[in-house]
Order: sequence, then C-alpha cells, then structure tokens
Amino acid sequence: MGDPRKQYRPDELRALCRSGAFSGQTAGAADGFVQANLAILPREFAFEFLLFCQRNPRPCPLVEVLEPGLTEPKCAPGADLRTDLPGYRVFRDGALVEEVVDIRKYWSGDLTSFLIGCSFSFEEALVRGGIHLRHLELGRNIAMYRTDRSCEPAGRFHGPLVVSMRPIPVGQVALATAITAAFPGSHGAPVHVGDPGSLGIVNLAAPDYGDPVPILDGEVPVFWACGVTPQAVVLESKLPFCITHAPGKMFVSDLSSAATEGASRSL
Amino acid sequence: MGDPRKQYRPDELRALCRSGAFSGQTAGAADGFVQANLAILPREFAFEFLLFCQRNPRPCPLVEVLEPGLTEPKCAPGADLRTDLPGYRVFRDGALVEEVVDIRKYWSGDLTSFLIGCSFSFEEALVRGGIHLRHLELGRNIAMYRTDRSCEPAGRFHGPLVVSMRPIPVGQVALATAITAAFPGSHGAPVHVGDPGSLGIVNLAAPDYGDPVPILDGEVPVFWACGVTPQAVVLESKLPFCITHAPGKMFVSDLSSAATEGASRSL
Repeated sequence: MGDPRKQYRPDELRALCRSGAFSGQTAGAADGFVQANLAILPREFAFEFLLFCQRNPRPCPLVEVLEPGLTEPKCAPGADLRTDLPGYRVFRDGALVEEVVDIRKYWSGDLTSFLIGCSFSFEEALVRGGIHLRHLELGRNIAMYRTDRSCEPAGRFHGPLVVSMRPIPVGQVALATAITAAFPGSHGAPVHVGDPGSLGIVNLAAPDYGDPVPILDGEVPVFWACGVTPQAVVLESKLPFCITHAPGKMFVSDLSSAATEGASRSL
Repeated sequence: MGDPRKQYRPDELRALCRSGAFSGQTAGAADGFVQANLAILPREFAFEFLLFCQRNPRPCPLVEVLEPGLTEPKCAPGADLRTDLPGYRVFRDGALVEEVVDIRKYWSGDLTSFLIGCSFSFEEALVRGGIHLRHLELGRNIAMYRTDRSCEPAGRFHGPLVVSMRPIPVGQVALATAITAAFPGSHGAPVHVGDPGSLGIVNLAAPDYGDPVPILDGEVPVFWACGVTPQAVVLESKLPFCITHAPGKMFVSDLSSAATEGASRSL
C-alpha cells in the first residue's frame, strides 16, 4: 500500500487476531490478499439482504456468503469468523451494544455471515500502477459520502449509495478507471468522475464517514462505490440483532487480490 | 437466429401468451431481447437457492429475483410472470403435476420468482459473428449433458454442472469464445473446449437433454454452462412445491441482449 507496515501471511494474521495479539487495522497488513467487510444477520433476514447485494453489485460485491450457522469460509480454510477479525461491533435494534474482539458468546446456528469486498485490493493495484493515494500518504481514513443516488431496494433493505473519494491527477483518471474496472469484486470502476454535486455531495471537506482529504490543483475528485453502503443499510434497517466488523478491522482471506477479477471466480 | 421466424416486440409476445394466442417456443421469436429461465419456489427455500445461484454464476446467471409474492419484474414493466410465458410446469415433491399456460390458480404471496439467463442471447451474437449453429439449422434442440463437475452446493441445493454443446469449426473457436465471454449474463465463455471425456461425458451421441447434433470433420465440440443446471438442481431437491417454465418456453424481457454484459448492469 506504499505503507511500510509489517506484512503477515493471512493465516498468521488471523491466528494473531484469534489469540488477541493483533487488534489493529488490517489495511496494508497482508498485501496481495483479499480483505472483506463482514455482516452477520439472523437467517430470517438473509434472503432479503442477499437479494440487496445481488441487486447492488458495485457497493456490495460478494466475496462469500455462508450457510446459517457456519463460521469457516471457503476463502480461508481453517478460519473462524467468530474470532479471526481484529474487532467486531454488536448491534441490537440498530443501536451499538458493544465492540468486542470475539463474538463466540453471541453465536447461534441461526446467524448468517456475509463477506463483502472492500477497496483495499484495488488500492494496492492503483499504487502499483503509479497512482499516489493521498489518504494513505497522510495516514488518514478514506473520505466517504452519502450520495443522493438510491440503491435498488430489496425487501426491508434500502438506502443511499455511499461512495469513497480519491483525488486523482487529471492525467491519471483514465488509468485509475482502467485499473479499478479490472476489480469488479472490489467495487470496480468509478461511479463518477469530477462533479460532487451530481452525486448530491455539497461539501467535500465534510465527509459523512472517514476523514477529509485535500484536493490539489490539477486533481479531480473520483468517486467509487463503497462497502460502507451495505453496513449503513443494515444498521438503518434496525434489525433486532446484527454484527459487523469494527471500522478498518477487516477479515483477511486467503484469496489472491488478482482473483477478485470476475471471470476468474466462476466455475 | 438465422431462423426466419416472425418477430414480436417483447410486450406484444407477452400479451399473446397472456391471452393464450401464443403457446410455442420462444427461441427466435423476439431477437435482440433477453430471454430467461423461470424458477418459482416457496420463500422458505429462496435464500439457499439464491445462494446457489450466487455461487454458480456460469450456469445460473441471475437476470432478476423478485421479492416473495411479486409478479411484475423490473426487466419487463407491466408483465405478469403468472401468465406471460407460453407454458409452465408445476411440480410437487419433485414430480410433475401438470403443464399449464397460466399459474394464477397456484399463486400465493409466499412464492419467489427467479429469472435466470439462457443461451439465446449469445447464440444471436454467435450467428451475427458468422458462426453457424447446427442445432438451429437442423431445427433441433441443443444437445445437453450432465458432467462430472459438481456445482458449489448451497444448503439443500446440489448437483452436477449441465453443459450445452455446439460443434464449432476449429478456426472459429477463439472467435466463439471471445463473443460469448462478452455475455456473462448469458453463461459467458465456454467451460471447456475439445474433450468430452474431461467433463465425464462418455457419448456425445446420447445427450442427457435435448437432441444429438453431429460433429463434422474439422469441428470441435465446445461446451458452455447451461441453464438446465439450476432447473435440474431444483427438481432433484424435491421441494414440496415449485414451478418452472416449460421447456423452450422462456420469459421474454424488455432488456436488450447487449445489456446482458456485466458492466452495463450495475449502478
């Protein structure tokens, strides 16, 4: 990620999470491997949420969905989704109950886990392609905004598309678009280039999530669909119970980032 | 399709189905528009079946999934899935109950409809690309085979990948692959070229579904994932109740065939 962080093998990092020895952010900790947002819902809501993801592949690219009760994903044999993330948030009726490092005490055979792609894979590719990502260089979170575009609703799940913004030099916009378009499993190509207003974003300096990132002369703001979208939608639907990863504390899979390209996923 | 059949607008063809005036096969009846396989299941099984489709996008490319009880798909405003196909098959416990042209008497708010892409879209593109499709020229059904490759199971749904086979002149295999790869919403690129044995197919002259199609000198058999796969899987799971389209009698949507390309579907 351009970030000289210590690198771990995915299984090594997951074991450190499980033992409690690693509870930090996962960005840049296992370059080359797909990281994923986690959402855990009661089975009763699983069909509608899966349908929501299917209808909104740009903000909700599915890495894997597990059958109710299962905790070991195929994308990481030997892993346990209840212990192998650095942190979790537990919600009841849409309200945060607690932030924990282990959700085994909450587990039941009724719970259904969704792993949803995040932007770390394509950010690695952008950096390799020679594109500077200011939020990484400044050590900030990415700037994220709620737009005035609605996702396709599915049953009780509905809400606005959330986007992340990266300032890109105008001469590199086509390159950044081409690189990210090759990662449909990680949000893919930008949803918009250039005009925040056309997405209903009034003030780039005041993101709805994350930190503001300055835009310099000769740069344009480029917007990508963001994995915060499904999280926001789940929380706003005020399910009686749900669990998500804690911000920035993703699940690190054994999948190579290159394998997020759509075609390589299929049979 | 190279077949000089009378052409209908999709809404016109659906209205003729609804009134009972059209009860034939839909291949070649509305060139340029996406046709889809239909599977209707009780809500109880909808999550696992959607998961099955999500895990097996090559044989099960989703065109649209409707919320339980809904009958008007977004891909065809004004349509009614209960009346607008030329024919349906109704099953109980995996056994055929009857073949009908109207399923309103079976309808309930519990039923969930899945529209799954079929090969007609990419066959049109192959023909436009100058590739002769012998089964069309002979007026036969396509030859289909159960393979020894298992689909990724999901809950109770599991079964073999079913493929369709088209004989392609050896000099056109790359072209046929490139053309169909552009249609991920319609099964996409071939899953195999050349060796039936590598898919566990013993005798090309004895297809498991459809009609045998001869392979001439200078041609190789090319195999694509087939929409019969999800149908076979649903029937073998012996659900207490389900409905499918009758063979060859697809749902004709308002979507342009060109729009089956993956990228154009998203936000």
